[in-house]
Amino acid sequence: MSYAMQLLDSYPRTISLDATLLASTIDALNDCAQACTADADDDLSEPDVAEMVKCIRLCLDCADICTTTSSVTSRRTDFDPRVTMPLLEACIAICRSCGDECQRHAPMHAHCRVCTEACRRCEEACGEFLMITN
Amino acid sequence: MSYAMQLLDSYPRTISLDATLLASTIDALNDCAQACTADADDDLSEPDVAEMVKCIRLCLDCADICTTTSSVTSRRTDFDPRVTMPLLEACIAICRSCGDECQRHAPMHAHCRVCTEACRRCEEACGEFLMITN
Amino acid sequence: MSYAMQLLDSYPRTISLDATLLASTIDALNDCAQACTADADDDLSEPDVAEMVKCIRLCLDCADICTTTSSVTSRRTDFDPRVTMPLLEACIAICRSCGDECQRHAPMHAHCRVCTEACRRCEEACGEFLMITN
Amino acid sequence: MSYAMQLLDSYPRTISLDATLLASTIDALNDCAQACTADADDDLSEPDVAEMVKCIRLCLDCADICTTTSSVTSRRTDFDPRVTMPLLEACIAICRSCGDECQRHAPMHAHCRVCTEACRRCEEACGEFLMITN
Repeated sequence: MSYAMQLLDSYPRTISLDATLLASTIDALNDCAQACTADADDDLSEPDVAEMVKCIRLCLDCADICTTTSSVTSRRTDFDPRVTMPLLEACIAICRSCGDECQRHAPMHAHCRVCTEACRRCEEACGEFLMITN
Repeated sequence: MSYAMQLLDSYPRTISLDATLLASTIDALNDCAQACTADADDDLSEPDVAEMVKCIRLCLDCADICTTTSSVTSRRTDFDPRVTMPLLEACIAICRSCGDECQRHAPMHAHCRVCTEACRRCEEACGEFLMITN
Repeated sequence: MSYAMQLLDSYPRTISLDATLLASTIDALNDCAQACTADADDDLSEPDVAEMVKCIRLCLDCADICTTTSSVTSRRTDFDPRVTMPLLEACIAICRSCGDECQRHAPMHAHCRVCTEACRRCEEACGEFLMITN
Repeated sequence: MSYAMQLLDSYPRTISLDATLLASTIDALNDCAQACTADADDDLSEPDVAEMVKCIRLCLDCADICTTTSSVTSRRTDFDPRVTMPLLEACIAICRSCGDECQRHAPMHAHCRVCTEACRRCEEACGEFLMITN
């Protein structure tokens, strides 16, 4: 069981939504942040770094936005959907852009293949979570 | 001249929007992140900490979201409004919520008065910036 | 296989140290950051929040330091032990302090029990990693 | 007066060290984080991006470490020098490395000139602060 799930399990108040779905969203956000931070650095080490500029930039944004979205959705006390909803929309948008750009490089760079998968899973998880937040 | 402005001034490509407005938005985001990080800790030191729970939570979210919004808007290379727009909306929403909650405590706590001002200025700056991003 | 390990596996250059140990350290750092972010919020929801002030503060520091240590150690390009070593020392120190404080509350609060475990594992992983970085 | 100083001024408990020096350290940390985040992106936009790889990597680390050091030193409640001291040492080390690398590019890139200055000021501020923390 992930730490996200264990901590939701032991939250002292009632959680008003599906804790299993929330935990898997948080896990997908943390995985995606990790993949993007490492992929940006992998891109920097490639001999064709000039071709990777857009990928690096999007990975940096994606790591930052996923980390913040993970922290904000992890905080259940006085949860406010007016904040969480646009944040999830921003997260879905960057996961899509970053996933698309990584996919373009996936045939040549294995690290971009891994990062594409992390972005797609995070986009999907945030999309499902956004639907139940509405 | 702030570092945000100096770095925009020396950006190697053309910046497609008003650099002065962008720099003052970034400055307001960084100021608000600092104010919220410190105010959450000030709240923790108050004898009536039980009354400050909502304020602490909102300050933590606001600091995280402002820091990420500052980083994403600071990156001009391959700038993507589909990401920046919902992120600014999330930032405006949390600055408003956090500013409202801080204002409730402002008559009793000077640090919440200062934090209210930082949140209001950041909300306004992001609102103006969002209009020109459209 | 974790995303940290998958990305290290596909790093384009040679990694000069044990990739399995590095990946498990990064995983422990990310787990600890998640546990501390959630535990700080759980503490805020407790009726005895005034007793939890020190725990909240240490959890906030621990989450920030673990997140940064994870990002810095994930970047292999131009790796610099003069930076990583004191950063790991700071991380070990906060994991120990935060773990000790969480353990004090563990008999009463299940979330502090979970967070203690995450801090202890992270402290241990960073300690092992620091030895091979020397 | 910066927000860091205003918030320290309104801290509800006694601050055990020189608040003016602390505030100017926090300001220097936030300035350096902003300069490094923007400089990494400026580097990515340079035609000679392959020459800038080390500079980008160091700027990313420096931004992360300065942001975390700013947050941790801003929190006065239950302040622990065993954590803050190695963290400041890590911050001084990365500001020195990043400043040195930026200085190498300063004759050609105005943004690296600005970032060098921010790193030098931050290194100096953290060094002074570390002395009084001992």
